[in-house]
Order: sequence, then C-alpha cells, then structure tokens
Amino acid sequence: MHADDARRICDAVDAAFDAQLELTAELVRHPSLRTREGSAQDLLYAEMERRGFAMDRWELDAAQLSEHVGYGPSTVSYEGVTNVVGTYRPTEHTGRSLILNGHVDVVPEGPEEAWSRSPWDAPVIDGWLHGRGSGDMKAGLVANLFAFDAVRAAGLSPAAPIHFQSVVEEECTGNGSLSALMRGYTADAVVIPEPEEDMLVRANTGVIWFTVRVAGVPTHPREMSSGFNAIDAAHHVMGELRRVEERWNAERGSHRHFEDLDHPINFNLGTIRGGDWPSSVPAWCEIEVRAALYPGVTADQAWEELTGALESVTSDAQGHPISAVATRTGFYAEGYVLEEGSEAEAVLARSHERVFGSELRSFTTPGYLDGRVFTLYGDIPTLVYGPVSEAIHGFDERVEVESVRRITKSIALFIADWCGTAQA
Amino acid sequence: MHADDARRICDAVDAAFDAQLELTAELVRHPSLRTREGSAQDLLYAEMERRGFAMDRWELDAAQLSEHVGYGPSTVSYEGVTNVVGTYRPTEHTGRSLILNGHVDVVPEGPEEAWSRSPWDAPVIDGWLHGRGSGDMKAGLVANLFAFDAVRAAGLSPAAPIHFQSVVEEECTGNGSLSALMRGYTADAVVIPEPEEDMLVRANTGVIWFTVRVAGVPTHPREMSSGFNAIDAAHHVMGELRRVEERWNAERGSHRHFEDLDHPINFNLGTIRGGDWPSSVPAWCEIEVRAALYPGVTADQAWEELTGALESVTSDAQGHPISAVATRTGFYAEGYVLEEGSEAEAVLARSHERVFGSELRSFTTPGYLDGRVFTLYGDIPTLVYGPVSEAIHGFDERVEVESVRRITKSIALFIADWCGTAQA
Repeated sequence: MHADDARRICDAVDAAFDAQLELTAELVRHPSLRTREGSAQDLLYAEMERRGFAMDRWELDAAQLSEHVGYGPSTVSYEGVTNVVGTYRPTEHTGRSLILNGHVDVVPEGPEEAWSRSPWDAPVIDGWLHGRGSGDMKAGLVANLFAFDAVRAAGLSPAAPIHFQSVVEEECTGNGSLSALMRGYTADAVVIPEPEEDMLVRANTGVIWFTVRVAGVPTHPREMSSGFNAIDAAHHVMGELRRVEERWNAERGSHRHFEDLDHPINFNLGTIRGGDWPSSVPAWCEIEVRAALYPGVTADQAWEELTGALESVTSDAQGHPISAVATRTGFYAEGYVLEEGSEAEAVLARSHERVFGSELRSFTTPGYLDGRVFTLYGDIPTLVYGPVSEAIHGFDERVEVESVRRITKSIALFIADWCGTAQA
Repeated sequence: MHADDARRICDAVDAAFDAQLELTAELVRHPSLRTREGSAQDLLYAEMERRGFAMDRWELDAAQLSEHVGYGPSTVSYEGVTNVVGTYRPTEHTGRSLILNGHVDVVPEGPEEAWSRSPWDAPVIDGWLHGRGSGDMKAGLVANLFAFDAVRAAGLSPAAPIHFQSVVEEECTGNGSLSALMRGYTADAVVIPEPEEDMLVRANTGVIWFTVRVAGVPTHPREMSSGFNAIDAAHHVMGELRRVEERWNAERGSHRHFEDLDHPINFNLGTIRGGDWPSSVPAWCEIEVRAALYPGVTADQAWEELTGALESVTSDAQGHPISAVATRTGFYAEGYVLEEGSEAEAVLARSHERVFGSELRSFTTPGYLDGRVFTLYGDIPTLVYGPVSEAIHGFDERVEVESVRRITKSIALFIADWCGTAQA
C-alpha cells in the first residue's frame, strides 16, 4: 500500500472519530441484553443501509441450528431475535473478500448500585468510554463500519465483497455467528474486533454451559443434623467439578499455546438458586456452570468427562444419597487455534505496525470467541483483534478511546490491503 | 370428671371421626401457602359459624403489629391475609376459659416431582393421612373443632368461653397469633395441637429469620483466578455464622431444658440466590438463614451477636474485600418455657392418661412455636400438644390417623375438665 493512501485513510479515521464515538455511545445506550437486541439491531441496520450495503436480516432458527455440531442449546425463544448483515459489493471483484463480524448482545449489568453510573449511559471520562457493552463489543462493531468509511473517504473503493455482520448470542451460545455461517456467508478472511488489548488471538478455549440440579430428601430444621441440605450438596458437587478443572489445568503442558498459562481452564460457578423456604432444609439447588476446554478437545469429549464426574457423585459430604443431573444450557463449543503463517495475519501485522509503531503481538485467551465458528466450520482465517478495555462482564465496563482510534485505523488499512482497492 | 362422661365424650369422638378426617382432608386440599390462606379460612369460618360461634375475621395490620416487641418483619403485603376466630360463649360462665389455637398456613411443597403424589391430595394410606399441612397442622386445627363437638354430643356444655383461633403466619413470622393476642383475645389456658408426637412441649427455641446479601467486585471468567466470587464468599460468610451456632450449642449446659439435647441450636441455610450469568463471575449472592436462640435470650441479644459476626467479615477466603449485610425478614422471636406445676398441665396430664393409658411426656423442641406469643406476652399457660407426624416441611408429609383420634379425645376431655360442664 502506498504510504500516501495509508496516511489518507488514517486521517479519515481521525476526521470521523467524533462521529464514531457518538454512534458507539448511542449503541451502548441500547441495553441489548439477550433477546432484547432488537433496537440496537435496528440502529445498525439503518447505519449499514445508509452506506448502500445490500441488507439481510433474519431470525435465528433453533431447529435448523440444532443440526450443526457447533450449536449451543438455547434456553430462550428466538422469536424476534435477528442477525443483521450488510454486504458491500465492489464494481469489480478483484481482491480478497472479507467478513467484519461483531456481536451486539451484552451480558447482564448485575446490581446497578455497584456501578458508578448507569450501565446504559455512555460518557467518555478520562479517555475511556463507559457502559455495559462499550468494550464487549460495541466499540468494535462500530469500528468495523468507520474503518470502511475511512477507506472510502480516502478516495478508495475496496475491490472485494465485505460482509458486515452484527450477530446475537455470542455471550451465551455462539448461535448468532453460526447462523450467519449456515446462511452461506463466507469470505477469504474474518476480522472480529473483540476487546483483546490491541493484540491478536492465537488460540482460545472452548466453552460449555450447563446446569446441575442437585436433589435429595429434605427435613424440618428441628431434625436438620440428620438431614440432607441441597445447598451444601451443590457445594460438594462443585468440588467434584473442580477436580476435573484441576486435572485439565495439569494437562496444559500438552496443549499447544496453553503451556505457559497459569490457569487456562476456568470453571465458573456463575449462578445458584436453591431452596424454597428459610425454615425448610433445602431439597434442591441448581448451579449454572461455565466450563472451558482446550482446542482439539471436542465438546462431546469434554461433556463425557464432566457428566462422568457428576455421575460419580451419589452422596453428599455426609453420606446422604443425592442426584446431580446436568443439562446443557448454552455454549457447547470447541476452542480454536489461528495457525501461524496465514496471509491474513501477515497483512494485519503490517497494518498494525504502521499504526501502532510496534509489532503485532498474539496471545492465548481462556474465553469463548465466535472465531471458532469461522475457523472450525468455515475454514477461514479469523483475526480476533481489538481495543483495550477494563471490567468487561464487571462493573464500570469501559473501553480506551485512543485504543479504539488506533484499532479502527489498523482495520481500515487491513481492509484496503486485504481487499485491494480501486480509485473511487 | 365422671368416668361415664369421659366415655361418652370418647365415644362421640369415635362416632364423628370419619367426618373429622373428611374435613381435615378437605382442608389439606386448600393449598394455604403464605398469603393464600383465604379459601382455607373461608372453610374454617363456615365450620365455626355452623357451630353457632360468635365470628370474628380481620386482616393483619403490619403497622400495628410492628409496635410489638414480638413482631417479625414481614416481606409480604397483608392485604387480604386474615385470622379467623370463633367464640363459644356458655350460658353461664363458671369454669376456666380456653383458647384452642392452630395455624392454617403451610410451608411450600418444594419440587412436586419429589412427592409420591400431589401434595394437595389427601388420601389415607396405611393409617396415615397424607399431604402438605396434614400434620403441620390441619389435623390439629380440625381436632380442636371435633373435640368441642364431642363434648356437646356427650350432652355437656362447656362452662367457660372458648376461642377457636385459626391463625396465619405461623411458619414465617408468628404475626398471626400475635395479632390475635393484640386484638384482645385472652384465656386461662391455650392449647395448640401442633404435631408433637403425642407429647407436651416443655420448652422450645426462638427463631430469627434474616437475609444476608454478600457483595464484592466481579470479573470476566478469563481473569477469575484474581477475582471475587460472591457464591464462594456466601459460603465463607455462612461459615462465620456456623461458628456462632457452634458457640451457642456449646453453651447448652447453662440453658434449662436444653442440657441434654445434642444440637439444640440449628442455623438453617434455607435459600440461596446468586449471580446473573454463567460466564460472569457472580457479583452478589443472597442467603436466607433461619437461626435459633434459647428461651431467655431476647431476639435483640441474639441479633446483636449475629450481626456482630457478619460485621467481622470484611474479606472472603482469598482476602478480597466483601460486604455481608443482614436484613431481618421474618421471625424475630424468643423461645419460651412452659413452667412445670401449672393446673392446665395437670388437667392435660389426666386427660392424656385416660386416653393413652400412659403418662404424658414432655420434651424440648428446637423449633419455633406460637406458644411463645401466649406465654411471653399473654402470661397464659400454653399447652403445645399434638399428634404423631412424619416429614413435616418435607416430601410426603403425613399424620398418623389413630394418633389424631387419641389426641382429639384427649383435647375433648381437657375441654370438659378445664372449662367445666353443665348438662346441655
């Protein structure tokens, strides 16, 4: 790429950056919690349509999705739950095509009193844009659009199709990106600007979500010393799962890209519900667990070990008989590795160096990413690469504004370089 | 009492016993869960009215109740939540007056699939009447009425007023009996046929209900090893409460009537709720705890120790700062002792021996009883005495039919002996 083109593209990002932040903030103000992504998708649809893209919007179809090995069982109805894709088509297709993907769904905000301000307000304070979803990943979704705008504002037209995808369900099943793939969207590379601290994801874990219902026989508290308490029993069951977690972590030496992480496999005890009445010894307790697995281990293989561990639990710590029954309630996903040496990565590395003045670093992350959909099932090199954030899934989530600016420039240069350009 | 009168009374219990069981079963079929006691109270109102009692029915008044030291903070509205009292008045009041009390509210049934049959069906199987509330304490409520009927069927009229009370809120606050006392109902003795295994309660514990909300700062599971998990923290907080429980149990030697119990003080972790999302480290967890206290220890004294223990928790097991805030959400009740040597107890002992052919045994129970309302605040000798049951607060709750028959006879003889009789 000519240095002149690169400079004009970067200048165009700067010129539109206030508008980019404004749209990001507007998007954060839509609380696009699971199944409530509609108004945020409306906004993105309008933004894409305004750019002249060919628009596509469709409802997820659980029955159809469930035929795919990468499907995560959904516990919600997909009625009204839609993906939005806008496609840019060049006059002449001479370059390499691209998917710019991002998810619009956000995780629950948790107790609002723990936030310094409303999670759905989106002020910039001391160089950080705040709000639930600001980092994870509305900044990235909007960066995809403004990176494209900058290429065009620099007087260039990408020479290959680009699909802008705003998907749902990334935080719970991965069914949004899976649905886009099953609808036929493919390309020569995928970029997903998740908040990855200005780095490229080399490998990540898969994730399985499941609910364990622990049950036994309860009694009146006056006889409780002889009785079974499902909440205590759930704690015991979680201990058995922790043994699996420990075993898998001990095996990290034999998993490429995971050897040097202290604790790559995290089992999160995410939610708990148990008991009906303070003066009745609880008869049941349900825990929702998020388990991680290494790339190369299929969800079926991991599930077999997890359920095996649960089946081995036949009594609580005091010897009362219990049952611990697991149900899959979300992610059922393998991890993936971005193999080194792809042309896509080389192009991104050049773009990154030009903007950041330093080498593109890659790393392994122990969290779920939709990158697995495109890598494992589309065989497409997928670059998960995005800005610096704090407290995603926590309180006062925020994304660093200058990092967003640089990432946008880097993606813009990537678009121009990867897709090739013609004078507009 | 003449042996003839006693025999006629007992025969009358036998004669009406099928009808008594039928009414008990009908009452069990009304799922009189908290705030949903209305239809069961309608039934009891009609039964009392039919017997010619002067009827009184009123809604509980939380504001008024809250001025009493024995009030348990209510977490529900009392709109439409009523006590029913029917009063028998003799032509001439020459004997000792009586309150026959029972509660109509039942605890939640829990997961219905754990029951052998519907909790709201009420079959007699192998000598046991089944169903939620059968033992605790609809058998007792109905026994009060049929005991009275038997005295009259024997051709006798009790010679003192008798107040038949069907109260609410016994399973959560004790505000039902408290409201009856505050309305002015008093008597020379109280009988409450709770399921006490054909025995008399000599002493019982007080109970406090409270919710502890544990909160901290959560993170994404990818950073969970450095983070705080509110569910684990709640377990840690419960551990601190267990230390108080242990200390109080160690002190049992200095509490009369509790010296010989293995574990009189039970803290029940009754319900738990925590976390919002499987892939977010939980930021909050709430536990509902039922703690017990010895008679002679005021609720305020116990509460000070409990909250002191919670205030001492400033970090979780890993040293992360946490807060554990307790709120009173139900019972705030002292225990009581039925002092030996009362005339009421002597009369009941005679009645019991006549029916059972064995001495009346008394015992100490580590559970809440409305007896504390009448004993502590009404200064009335209160006899908590009732049939054999199984699995109250559990699955397949049931009450022994022949025990109900004998207890009814015993209460009937007590009525005649305590109140005195005239020929009808």
